[in-house]
Amino acid sequence: MTDVANAALHADPKPTLGITVGEPAGIGPEIAIRAAWELREEVRSVLIGDSAFLAMLAAEIDPAIRLVAISQFALRNDGLPSFPADRIAVVDCPLAAHVTPGMPNALNGRQVLQTLDVAIEGAMAGWLDAIVTAPLQKSTINDAGVPFTGHTEYLAEKTRTPQVVMMLATEATTPPLRVALATTHLPLKDVPAAITFDSLSRTLDILHADLRGKFGMATPRILVTGLNPHAGENGYLGREEIEVIAPALEAARSRGIDAAGPYPADTLFQQKYLKDADAVLAMYHDQGLPVLKHASFGRGINITLGLPIIRTSVDHGTALDVAAQGLGRADHGSMIEAIRAAARMAATKTATQ
Amino acid sequence: MTDVANAALHADPKPTLGITVGEPAGIGPEIAIRAAWELREEVRSVLIGDSAFLAMLAAEIDPAIRLVAISQFALRNDGLPSFPADRIAVVDCPLAAHVTPGMPNALNGRQVLQTLDVAIEGAMAGWLDAIVTAPLQKSTINDAGVPFTGHTEYLAEKTRTPQVVMMLATEATTPPLRVALATTHLPLKDVPAAITFDSLSRTLDILHADLRGKFGMATPRILVTGLNPHAGENGYLGREEIEVIAPALEAARSRGIDAAGPYPADTLFQQKYLKDADAVLAMYHDQGLPVLKHASFGRGINITLGLPIIRTSVDHGTALDVAAQGLGRADHGSMIEAIRAAARMAATKTATQ
Repeated sequence: MTDVANAALHADPKPTLGITVGEPAGIGPEIAIRAAWELREEVRSVLIGDSAFLAMLAAEIDPAIRLVAISQFALRNDGLPSFPADRIAVVDCPLAAHVTPGMPNALNGRQVLQTLDVAIEGAMAGWLDAIVTAPLQKSTINDAGVPFTGHTEYLAEKTRTPQVVMMLATEATTPPLRVALATTHLPLKDVPAAITFDSLSRTLDILHADLRGKFGMATPRILVTGLNPHAGENGYLGREEIEVIAPALEAARSRGIDAAGPYPADTLFQQKYLKDADAVLAMYHDQGLPVLKHASFGRGINITLGLPIIRTSVDHGTALDVAAQGLGRADHGSMIEAIRAAARMAATKTATQ
Repeated sequence: MTDVANAALHADPKPTLGITVGEPAGIGPEIAIRAAWELREEVRSVLIGDSAFLAMLAAEIDPAIRLVAISQFALRNDGLPSFPADRIAVVDCPLAAHVTPGMPNALNGRQVLQTLDVAIEGAMAGWLDAIVTAPLQKSTINDAGVPFTGHTEYLAEKTRTPQVVMMLATEATTPPLRVALATTHLPLKDVPAAITFDSLSRTLDILHADLRGKFGMATPRILVTGLNPHAGENGYLGREEIEVIAPALEAARSRGIDAAGPYPADTLFQQKYLKDADAVLAMYHDQGLPVLKHASFGRGINITLGLPIIRTSVDHGTALDVAAQGLGRADHGSMIEAIRAAARMAATKTATQ
């Protein structure tokens, strides 16, 4: 059901999003196709993956889905051509080997990275307004001989960004809950030493700047957790609050950042506090994300702050076990939310430029 | 509105609960009176505090409230006398100094401990079926010259219990969410070393035994988190899961305990996993409690497992700022839930004995 791009120009106010379909043996390709098709009235979607593979999946998912193939060669010469508003574009990144759902193949590891490279190139060049990433399988890329620690780190490196901030968010709560992390994928024992005045200051700067620039909040209000239980209870349960976190918050406030805390993490996530907050900054992964994922009911998304581009992703993994059962079992709810969030952020960025 | 106890015997199937009113300058006395009165059809409440002070508060809260005073002397001689089913009993523990709401006075520190002593004595002797504690102010007791780290530790010491387990629970979710902790009030940096094969094994034994004996579950199902993000991601983000947690779970299963994990804490708290679980065992305070308190909407409670007696408490503090504003501002929802949970547990224990 692919088609060549229609060269006629479409004056289309919808944002153009590049969606990498991720690990081909996971649920990524299916949820990307379903979500892009469902949202075709709201966004112009550009899937980035193997066009023949995606066309085959799309035909199985719903014969009504219309794709339009775009070659990388054409993109590099002329940028993204316009395409009919009722279609999904596909930028072709050919797979190296056959795909068996549920069974990643290291031969396809480099293709997954190539889809990211195209998305980053498009966002940096401006023919994509934002990128949305479906989940990939880290181990498969490493098995392909490429050292790789994750999407976020790869995006930071390729865009030459010295520090990024991971934020998870959901619109399932009122107000929306946004949780940014001061540290991410570290063993718990390494967390306390990783939180310094400087790192926390940079994190607060990035969070504040992106809540303004990408979320359109004039004066974002940030609530910050402590590191220790009860935020250290005046030093009785740890001194990091007194020695590191409170001074960093004080300094941030002197730079005009509305950052309050440090507060006990167990009481902070109650409605009476959250109702006045635009974001929570948690000190580490399992302090902030269990509550976010509990509250999001499968509609959470991941947003990388600090990049020169807009990037959102789903908040789940490749779900190889689900993919192995065949099409129709995967929940594309998080992908829907990730696409909508990217579209909103792109519109905000455009409006404030 | 106090009265002497009516000596006529009442054949009353309602459980008898001792309720310590906690720090007199906090919201404890008010929420204890309100909740005990509201639930007088469900439980026989025995408030433990200064009877003149409580009578004065009760008269202000609602002139309809009927109290009946019981002296400690009578208790020690004859145990708890019966009292009319539509009244709340008060065991008198006299305060040493005047109470100014919102301003704890160290002169009253020892009285707060005395209320606990009476409650423990009653539960151990059997004239109380369970105890419920309103919040106290740790610093005030320490200021009174008594080293004191918390209710839970005090109860363990007085009942000669070598290890207890802190569990928070809420009925606000379906199914009820119960989160037990492998470690409690420790600085974060001390958490990894505190989790050993032995300590985790004892925690699992206590949790399993009390879910059976106090909650009446024949085969409780326990989900266990990892210590590190993503439960260590196969050793890539920490090795405690491989070296400590998984072996302890394996050993627990060989003792007939249905304990599954270690699972990533951020994904574990999703409905698709929780719906089949009776309790979650989290490795530390801020991994498990933010989600519990977020989900409980002010209706969470604290349960101490492993004691020879039943003890529940509210999940909040003394709220001195609220108390300072006068009566009528405090939310007694958590106290209501703590009393109901203690009553259910007492009924379960009676039924299984």
